[in-house]
Amino acid sequence: MAVNDADCKHLFDNRYGTGQSAWEGVIRATNLSIAGSVAVVVGYGFVGKGVAMRAKGLGARVIVTEVQPIRAIEAIMDGFEVMPIVEAARLGDFFVTVTGNRDVIAGEAFEVMKDGAVLANAGHFDVEICKPHLAKLADRVEIVRPNVEAYRLRDGRTLYLLAEGRLVNLICADGHPVEVMDMTFSLQLLGLHHVITNRPVPGLHSIPLDIDTRVASMRLAAWGTSIDMLTPEQKLYQASWE
Amino acid sequence: MAVNDADCKHLFDNRYGTGQSAWEGVIRATNLSIAGSVAVVVGYGFVGKGVAMRAKGLGARVIVTEVQPIRAIEAIMDGFEVMPIVEAARLGDFFVTVTGNRDVIAGEAFEVMKDGAVLANAGHFDVEICKPHLAKLADRVEIVRPNVEAYRLRDGRTLYLLAEGRLVNLICADGHPVEVMDMTFSLQLLGLHHVITNRPVPGLHSIPLDIDTRVASMRLAAWGTSIDMLTPEQKLYQASWE
Amino acid sequence: MAVNDADCKHLFDNRYGTGQSAWEGVIRATNLSIAGSVAVVVGYGFVGKGVAMRAKGLGARVIVTEVQPIRAIEAIMDGFEVMPIVEAARLGDFFVTVTGNRDVIAGEAFEVMKDGAVLANAGHFDVEICKPHLAKLADRVEIVRPNVEAYRLRDGRTLYLLAEGRLVNLICADGHPVEVMDMTFSLQLLGLHHVITNRPVPGLHSIPLDIDTRVASMRLAAWGTSIDMLTPEQKLYQASWE
Amino acid sequence: MAVNDADCKHLFDNRYGTGQSAWEGVIRATNLSIAGSVAVVVGYGFVGKGVAMRAKGLGARVIVTEVQPIRAIEAIMDGFEVMPIVEAARLGDFFVTVTGNRDVIAGEAFEVMKDGAVLANAGHFDVEICKPHLAKLADRVEIVRPNVEAYRLRDGRTLYLLAEGRLVNLICADGHPVEVMDMTFSLQLLGLHHVITNRPVPGLHSIPLDIDTRVASMRLAAWGTSIDMLTPEQKLYQASWE
Repeated sequence: MAVNDADCKHLFDNRYGTGQSAWEGVIRATNLSIAGSVAVVVGYGFVGKGVAMRAKGLGARVIVTEVQPIRAIEAIMDGFEVMPIVEAARLGDFFVTVTGNRDVIAGEAFEVMKDGAVLANAGHFDVEICKPHLAKLADRVEIVRPNVEAYRLRDGRTLYLLAEGRLVNLICADGHPVEVMDMTFSLQLLGLHHVITNRPVPGLHSIPLDIDTRVASMRLAAWGTSIDMLTPEQKLYQASWE
Repeated sequence: MAVNDADCKHLFDNRYGTGQSAWEGVIRATNLSIAGSVAVVVGYGFVGKGVAMRAKGLGARVIVTEVQPIRAIEAIMDGFEVMPIVEAARLGDFFVTVTGNRDVIAGEAFEVMKDGAVLANAGHFDVEICKPHLAKLADRVEIVRPNVEAYRLRDGRTLYLLAEGRLVNLICADGHPVEVMDMTFSLQLLGLHHVITNRPVPGLHSIPLDIDTRVASMRLAAWGTSIDMLTPEQKLYQASWE
Repeated sequence: MAVNDADCKHLFDNRYGTGQSAWEGVIRATNLSIAGSVAVVVGYGFVGKGVAMRAKGLGARVIVTEVQPIRAIEAIMDGFEVMPIVEAARLGDFFVTVTGNRDVIAGEAFEVMKDGAVLANAGHFDVEICKPHLAKLADRVEIVRPNVEAYRLRDGRTLYLLAEGRLVNLICADGHPVEVMDMTFSLQLLGLHHVITNRPVPGLHSIPLDIDTRVASMRLAAWGTSIDMLTPEQKLYQASWE
Repeated sequence: MAVNDADCKHLFDNRYGTGQSAWEGVIRATNLSIAGSVAVVVGYGFVGKGVAMRAKGLGARVIVTEVQPIRAIEAIMDGFEVMPIVEAARLGDFFVTVTGNRDVIAGEAFEVMKDGAVLANAGHFDVEICKPHLAKLADRVEIVRPNVEAYRLRDGRTLYLLAEGRLVNLICADGHPVEVMDMTFSLQLLGLHHVITNRPVPGLHSIPLDIDTRVASMRLAAWGTSIDMLTPEQKLYQASWE
């Protein structure tokens, strides 16, 4: 079951879970102020949207980098600046990668970064930030706080890498808030139950919409929130449209 | 061609276009302050998200009503309150309907609204707010400002209906900002060109992704914005994942 | 009575009133999208804070220019960019002046602005934007929409001046929302009553704090909002501190 | 020297410093999601404004309680709900006190709180939350995570008190970000220098404006930010006004 594609997973876990926990990781590791800083968010998928939204909510000026034009204009319409990573590299105080790809901060970008810039990954494996290149530029690497490596570059600048480039929200914080994990675990459990009950043909299956909706309804009930229901007339009207 | 389903249409036209122009319509019609008010947004689809986001951005306390559990928790995670319309009706200063359905404000909701509440529709036809029911409660209806009808209810309260329940952004403002319409028109033109060139079988077709992306790229170019491109290594890495 | 210095005046009228009505004026005059644009706010006093906050709330990337260091860092901590006007001039789509001073956009700034930039004043008299200099750069001036003058510059660019540089919120919109004016008028009335009753020595007097508080309390009552009251123990505790 | 009254202190340290570090303390202690929660901020002074702004930025629905009418309407105009603490007590998931007063959460408020509510103080001493009353309602108190005391109430509910009611940003996080402390220490140092150099009469003195401005200018220089300067003509014009 492709739990990660369910709405209850990617909307809530990826966007809201990582949005908070990535910055919690950065703050806990560095004790720096996000307000007044320039935060560069590399990637504007679900996780990137959450990370950018929280950076703004914490008072940062936010720059987004992207490779997809549609996401890029979405970021601009959301009030963010968009530019190539090499330009953003000159401006950023914090960089958070959330692409699922490799070497999204690499080469030339390291060469123009400000002294003291902080690099963190909240996307995926520890290949988003190109550590081999960073190591090549450095004289030596020191651990200056728990989970904070100072790369002392030969040109005198220092770049700080958090969590060795691994997931900053898992290493420097406690991962997702528990309410968010609740939803993910519920999807996994009900997905498993669906597999056992319905025995679909082997292969990758989406979480059925009714399971997704059921998990959402349980979450609302836990909050004590009621919502409206369509009347028979409204269902009819809607059906006449679709 | 289902232009309305293209990302460049529903993301930008529906969310950002209507988000701004609906409130511009409300403000122009009423000259009331959105800051300090309670704004009830009925529906949390693309248009509803834009209308809610702008209400918050203008300083309102925002309440969302929904019929779909997933959208309801999305609204809550975005920081909004969610409740049934009959409860929201007691609290709202402004109501904006954006559902595409009928009678989403009706019956009991009118009976508990505050004296002076303002009702507007930014979703669809003039059936979202149930005008017949409103008329039945009223003694008389007066036009108190252009596009503002005061329903003088028999119990002494006044409810203000904007634009006779038709689209407030078109009637009370100038519709979408021109930059947003640019994108919609480009999609329509390129969609038409696609039909002429490729002669697909008759039926409803999606806008091909490459047209959607091309419109987005032109929009970025018009802004003078550059974005990154995947390297061959990154394309390979991404492909190994998907 | 220096009504303008009362909290109920400068907090609400200046910050929230002009914040909304200045953008309402810009949108009504131009029908352009604020989301996705770069808005330059010249001055970060009470009015500037309101104008910047609403620009952000409408989806703009906001740049602030200032002459006072403390206000400049306040703007940065609020998540805005700060730079000299000559640099901001290259980036802005919209410029709103709110300084109370003269020629705050002038000379070199006009020369580097983007083709199509929109200039508006929400601060004071029509001297904030230096019209004589703008006229000198222009070949001719055309009115292209009500309250929108197109300055056709000799180098081919067009700059749009709203409301002839006079207050955009009064000329292009309906001025302050009525709820905000309520508070200002209440202050004026109670201030006048205070003068008649207490006959202070001639000169400029502040609005007494109890009048300011009384107006605020009436505003809360009109909203149906209750607040807490200090207990005798709390008053004692607080007094022991101050 | 009343360092706490300097703009560079109360604007930045109190508002932005505590705004971030209080929530960092709450998140680190509890690993709960702020997005989707109801955050009650008790007090809307400089610290309260920062704490409320960040709660909103992290995705909470924010309720403010106050005893001063002017601050209460300021909170409403900022988009927050305002109500007495006894009403807010029924709704809140998180409570953060920032008043400088005592027993601002006490008595009846505890009795109506939701099971699982989290109580933290970011204002002052550990008297803002009335611990004796809380203890009286409880059967027993357990430490369930570091700095998290679970008060097991006799009616079956659990209320969580962070840091024993002492400053949550100091106990559960690392206090102010370093950039904010820089400014406070600079004020203290230059204030001390002023005392030694100018030997004012004994008593409580304000930080002179030029020291405040100088600290702000150094902060801007450290960011590499330039700002505008008034021209002689502008100084003259401004002087003609004031």
